[in-house]
Amino acid sequence: MNHPPSHRYEQLAELIAQMIEKGTLAAGARLPSLRAASEQHGVSLSTTLQAYRLLEQRGVLTARSQSGYYVNGVRTTALALPSMSRGRTKPSTVSISDAVTHLLEHAANTSLVPLGCAVPDAALLQAARLDRTLARLARTQGENANIYSAPLGEHALRQAIAQRAMRVGQALSADDILITCGCTEALVLALSAVASRGQAVAIESPTYFGLLHTLEALGLKAFELPTDPIAGVDVAALARLLETETISACVLSSSFNNPLGSTMPDANKRSLLALLTAHDIPLIEDDIYGDLHFGRERPKPFIALDGGANTIYCSSFSKSIAPGYRVGWITAGVHMARVVERKLAFSLCSAVLPQRALADFLATGAYDTHLRRVRRVFQENLARMARTVEASFPAGTKVSRPQGGFVLWLELPRSVDTRTLFDKALERGICFAPGDVFSASRRFRNCLRLSAGYSWTARIESGVRTLGSLAREALMR
Amino acid sequence: MNHPPSHRYEQLAELIAQMIEKGTLAAGARLPSLRAASEQHGVSLSTTLQAYRLLEQRGVLTARSQSGYYVNGVRTTALALPSMSRGRTKPSTVSISDAVTHLLEHAANTSLVPLGCAVPDAALLQAARLDRTLARLARTQGENANIYSAPLGEHALRQAIAQRAMRVGQALSADDILITCGCTEALVLALSAVASRGQAVAIESPTYFGLLHTLEALGLKAFELPTDPIAGVDVAALARLLETETISACVLSSSFNNPLGSTMPDANKRSLLALLTAHDIPLIEDDIYGDLHFGRERPKPFIALDGGANTIYCSSFSKSIAPGYRVGWITAGVHMARVVERKLAFSLCSAVLPQRALADFLATGAYDTHLRRVRRVFQENLARMARTVEASFPAGTKVSRPQGGFVLWLELPRSVDTRTLFDKALERGICFAPGDVFSASRRFRNCLRLSAGYSWTARIESGVRTLGSLAREALMR
Repeated sequence: MNHPPSHRYEQLAELIAQMIEKGTLAAGARLPSLRAASEQHGVSLSTTLQAYRLLEQRGVLTARSQSGYYVNGVRTTALALPSMSRGRTKPSTVSISDAVTHLLEHAANTSLVPLGCAVPDAALLQAARLDRTLARLARTQGENANIYSAPLGEHALRQAIAQRAMRVGQALSADDILITCGCTEALVLALSAVASRGQAVAIESPTYFGLLHTLEALGLKAFELPTDPIAGVDVAALARLLETETISACVLSSSFNNPLGSTMPDANKRSLLALLTAHDIPLIEDDIYGDLHFGRERPKPFIALDGGANTIYCSSFSKSIAPGYRVGWITAGVHMARVVERKLAFSLCSAVLPQRALADFLATGAYDTHLRRVRRVFQENLARMARTVEASFPAGTKVSRPQGGFVLWLELPRSVDTRTLFDKALERGICFAPGDVFSASRRFRNCLRLSAGYSWTARIESGVRTLGSLAREALMR
Repeated sequence: MNHPPSHRYEQLAELIAQMIEKGTLAAGARLPSLRAASEQHGVSLSTTLQAYRLLEQRGVLTARSQSGYYVNGVRTTALALPSMSRGRTKPSTVSISDAVTHLLEHAANTSLVPLGCAVPDAALLQAARLDRTLARLARTQGENANIYSAPLGEHALRQAIAQRAMRVGQALSADDILITCGCTEALVLALSAVASRGQAVAIESPTYFGLLHTLEALGLKAFELPTDPIAGVDVAALARLLETETISACVLSSSFNNPLGSTMPDANKRSLLALLTAHDIPLIEDDIYGDLHFGRERPKPFIALDGGANTIYCSSFSKSIAPGYRVGWITAGVHMARVVERKLAFSLCSAVLPQRALADFLATGAYDTHLRRVRRVFQENLARMARTVEASFPAGTKVSRPQGGFVLWLELPRSVDTRTLFDKALERGICFAPGDVFSASRRFRNCLRLSAGYSWTARIESGVRTLGSLAREALMR
């Protein structure tokens, strides 16, 4: 972490994390007992427990009952973490659509090594059971489903989503949920419900380029907040910003931010919610990667911490099971009526059969089995990718430590321009996402994002290695 | 028609239409030969031919080869046509979302007699073949389809749409077409590509309430154009408006306007296009009802008349085959890049399998067989509905003459308030669409729209009769 850990348990966790990174504590090793560690570090038992739990939450340790804490099997890289980003106290008018359209065109080109697009590989997802459900419903319920869906969407799916939300402490009913065309539409509805053209919102930096593209289309400006690659946005920086600036909303990832992989600790989430509530500013959270956690516990979304009083929650099934179905959802508390109005105005309603197929699929419990498998695969892919980066990229390359999701953020030496690298990579048949599309002010020109959403193959590995060579060449010029 | 027909052939067509309406020429009757009619009316042969062809185009006559022209079998009503609407030379700030949401909630209530929502009955559509195609593709192509669709949408569907467009004189390639989440999203993309918050557009009056709802969500104002129930908007009125006012776009139905059922004659369409082109104002056309024509020929959309130079074309499969699939499309000429950018920003892409199922279905030719059947059913439903209205509504009720689609527009005596009638009808288990939701300035309070999209049953007929009684009661108070 690039900012000093503020609590004693965070300092201890950081120390242990460094020991693991340096190999002092190897993969699979058992950690000292709580008592032994407390004595060794001169802290209380509860501080040690908090430190172990934090590392467990981050996927670094695993607790085994009656046995203690163990270092997770996937070795993390020895490369340094990317820097904490700097904030911008001036709002940026977003103008990114050319770059995003350019990237998406290449990302959709299946002849390229697919490191560009943060979409999971269909072959890896193995969604055949879901597809069979869709096939069965199309045969048996086709006529009954050939209607405009109710304004909120199919009740069975909303019910299933509400039931899952209870597990992470979100108390929702089916009627609190509106089905959308993916998380993109959810974010558009949220933003257009609480912000008007010309106003500004606060965002992570770097952040998902699709969000920037949406801000541009809605004519919204962006304040970029300093963001730590582990702990997410700096709440104190937001507090300082709000002393002088007015924003209409704050838009953040719930966990495993794309592209950094950062997740705010619960305490920071609570501080941020308190700050926003004091200023009467809604939080819009994007939890699209939340189900893809590597640690034992799913990180809590903001909405579970404030009961939805001031939070608009957006998510979808696109990253975890069904990118082809375009089914997302939103729950917007006091803003719900405006969000529903905008859904009717923007796309009327969502397709019926894909919603019903997902509802049936969720009811079987197959989704949990599925998630356990894909989480493991994504975690392994990311570890392999980090090791390949370590072996092939120039010295000084820094790499993120995502504890969920499937994207990796690389910070290269300052002199490497990743937009030039992008063109060179295309010539070699490789696609990735250059860093500047993740910033409203087009920063991060020496950074890039790699997707590990595809099954790890020799082709992928070779693509990463080639990219590393190209980066080394760029540095030598 | 309420405005004087401007050409000799239009005057003759009007005369013949009146003879048919009055029963002078009965359903099934053969019209005088061209020569006989020319002598009788003192006009040239070509004028008579033009008049006959115009009536054929409007579905009033049918030409049989080697035999002549015949009056179509479905008797039209003896009730008068609704008045031509008056224009408004001031732009209205649209504020209709409460009324639309209220209506849509009731329209989705399946326990009510379904005269409220302009959606075809799934049982009437008989889309089982399309659903079987979807089922087959979900089984056989599920994995391959579990991806983000290409930015424009699935190529096979765009190709099939482009091929069909050629039949009505639209020369399009697959790459000119973007797949959307229904026609609603197509209109949102079109509007947001060419107009900004606070600007105004010109629209038909009455017009589809969904368009008004979309204008409100985008913060656009509306100039309501005078609109004839047969011939659509008054081009001269638009010309006068443009002498003093600035508009960002004109948004019109291509044919069978919802709710009037009006279709502009080709000559008027050409004048309107010339006028807009001279002012460099794009035309956004909604052709969602175009495939549901009762006459032999499908009316030409605007885009087929100007080659798309200044036209953004929107349509979908929701009214003709698949309301549950949410698949529409847009082709936007010079505005295409901005439209594609907004699609990416608003919903990223559309679901894959429904697109592929429609592409397969279109390739079989089954869609044309389907259309022939549903056109006949909708035409018969509308005729039955008009006759039931004639038998049960108060004297002085006027009714539209749609030559396509499946909605009927009623103008009741001035003293009947259809919003009060709406509440009374709900108590009796009947839903319809009150007139004021079809106007930005909330006019047409003595009008209402009935949907004839459901199979004609005793329940539907009884619902229309009950509505007629309620309207008579309202008049007596």
